Amino acid sequence: MVDLQQATRFASQTADAARKIAMRHFRQPLGVEHKNDNSPVTVADREIEAFIRTRIAAEWPGHGIFGEEEAPVNTDSRHVWIVDPIDGTKSFVTGHPLFGQLLALMDGATPCLGQIDMPATGERWVGVQGSPTLLNGALCRTSNCRDLSQAFAYTTDPLLFTGPRAAAFQALRQAVRLIRFGGDCYSYGLLASGHCDLVLETGLQPYDYLPVVQIVRGAGGVITDWHGADLGVGSAGDVLASATPDLHGAMLRKLADLRERQAA
Amino acid sequence: MVDLQQATRFASQTADAARKIAMRHFRQPLGVEHKNDNSPVTVADREIEAFIRTRIAAEWPGHGIFGEEEAPVNTDSRHVWIVDPIDGTKSFVTGHPLFGQLLALMDGATPCLGQIDMPATGERWVGVQGSPTLLNGALCRTSNCRDLSQAFAYTTDPLLFTGPRAAAFQALRQAVRLIRFGGDCYSYGLLASGHCDLVLETGLQPYDYLPVVQIVRGAGGVITDWHGADLGVGSAGDVLASATPDLHGAMLRKLADLRERQAA
Repeated sequence: MVDLQQATRFASQTADAARKIAMRHFRQPLGVEHKNDNSPVTVADREIEAFIRTRIAAEWPGHGIFGEEEAPVNTDSRHVWIVDPIDGTKSFVTGHPLFGQLLALMDGATPCLGQIDMPATGERWVGVQGSPTLLNGALCRTSNCRDLSQAFAYTTDPLLFTGPRAAAFQALRQAVRLIRFGGDCYSYGLLASGHCDLVLETGLQPYDYLPVVQIVRGAGGVITDWHGADLGVGSAGDVLASATPDLHGAMLRKLADLRERQAA
Repeated sequence: MVDLQQATRFASQTADAARKIAMRHFRQPLGVEHKNDNSPVTVADREIEAFIRTRIAAEWPGHGIFGEEEAPVNTDSRHVWIVDPIDGTKSFVTGHPLFGQLLALMDGATPCLGQIDMPATGERWVGVQGSPTLLNGALCRTSNCRDLSQAFAYTTDPLLFTGPRAAAFQALRQAVRLIRFGGDCYSYGLLASGHCDLVLETGLQPYDYLPVVQIVRGAGGVITDWHGADLGVGSAGDVLASATPDLHGAMLRKLADLRERQAA
């Protein structure tokens, strides 16, 4: 087993340095390319990921790396680092400060460490297995919201809910008190800190959701796929995170009802 | 004619103080009520607007006031202050830092001064007739984007585009390079600073759009309703803001084409 204290220190120092790279490019003229899935990518994404990969290879030579911009390395290792150099690239390229830098460390199928760093706002959420989640060193706790009709919800982009998933978005929208769009990784930080109550997303990649798992859990929240299963590298990218088990159960039941109706 | 220098100083000092009220309530337990239009309102919205109204009445006794939370006062006056105590209340109540405090001063039908203050990020855009727009005292300039297919666009909530307006959102989505959701007033600041190129909104209120008019214009951008008409107190709440006249013209033509097709 890896030394989690050492890994946490490493993640923190890595984010300190990655922040500087991000802020050097933020609100500066940037070439923006579009990848095969039409998501934007910039020189900053690539530079940050290359930097983090170099650091991981130097400090944890036996570990694997799974990142957004380069090919996976040694992912059969028990320990694999998950890297999203810039989460919220749409924010980053439009000068919007709520982009993040995400890191997770997998211990087999379990994310044992997760980190959301927000370079422009200076916020950093850290979740480590066996410890409570911290925001800039201070304890985080999810809200005690147990009732969907009272919930403040986030989803990044309602248009991502297509085909049978469109009904899930409509169900969420009708059930909750308020939905705000455009969250990306920050939504999970707000959830961990008790400011919002529920996050529903679809179409996420492992580097989007694995880094937030331990942050949500360590703050008292619940995070699974839409079937209630633990999130892993092979999950479908449908993510539900909730402030309390009751709230999570209520939304999972809604999602299950929809599936049954659609199958009927 | 009002002394615009004095009015600008007043707006700035007012925002300095309003910031403190906002930040005292931000991320604190807050009662959230819902108004008739189901938009959320908090004690912070009400406290800030009451504070600003008191200041206006003391400094500009002859001027009118049109704000989000209280009844209009003396709006037949040549000079009317437009007040949005918290723009992006959905952000504010979910601990999200991108809420703003908006002020405008009308000279007859024209907003001669506009201010976007972002209490949590410390950014303040100021637009004054006859002067270039400033962000925290530094000159702002819109981008030189002239081509819709290259534009980075913002809209706060795609679900606000209902009925015949739904087609406008679809047209925007198909035409531009990238859309990000969840902007509120910040989108116009990003536009004025050259970070995004186009903002399309519907369902806005005068206190949402009048404060941003001079900010967009003073940075070289164009802002009108969807027919290309100047925005005033009586506009329908359909707002288009663009980095350049060419880009604005291209989107206006798209909107006109849609109307013609829908009328046919």
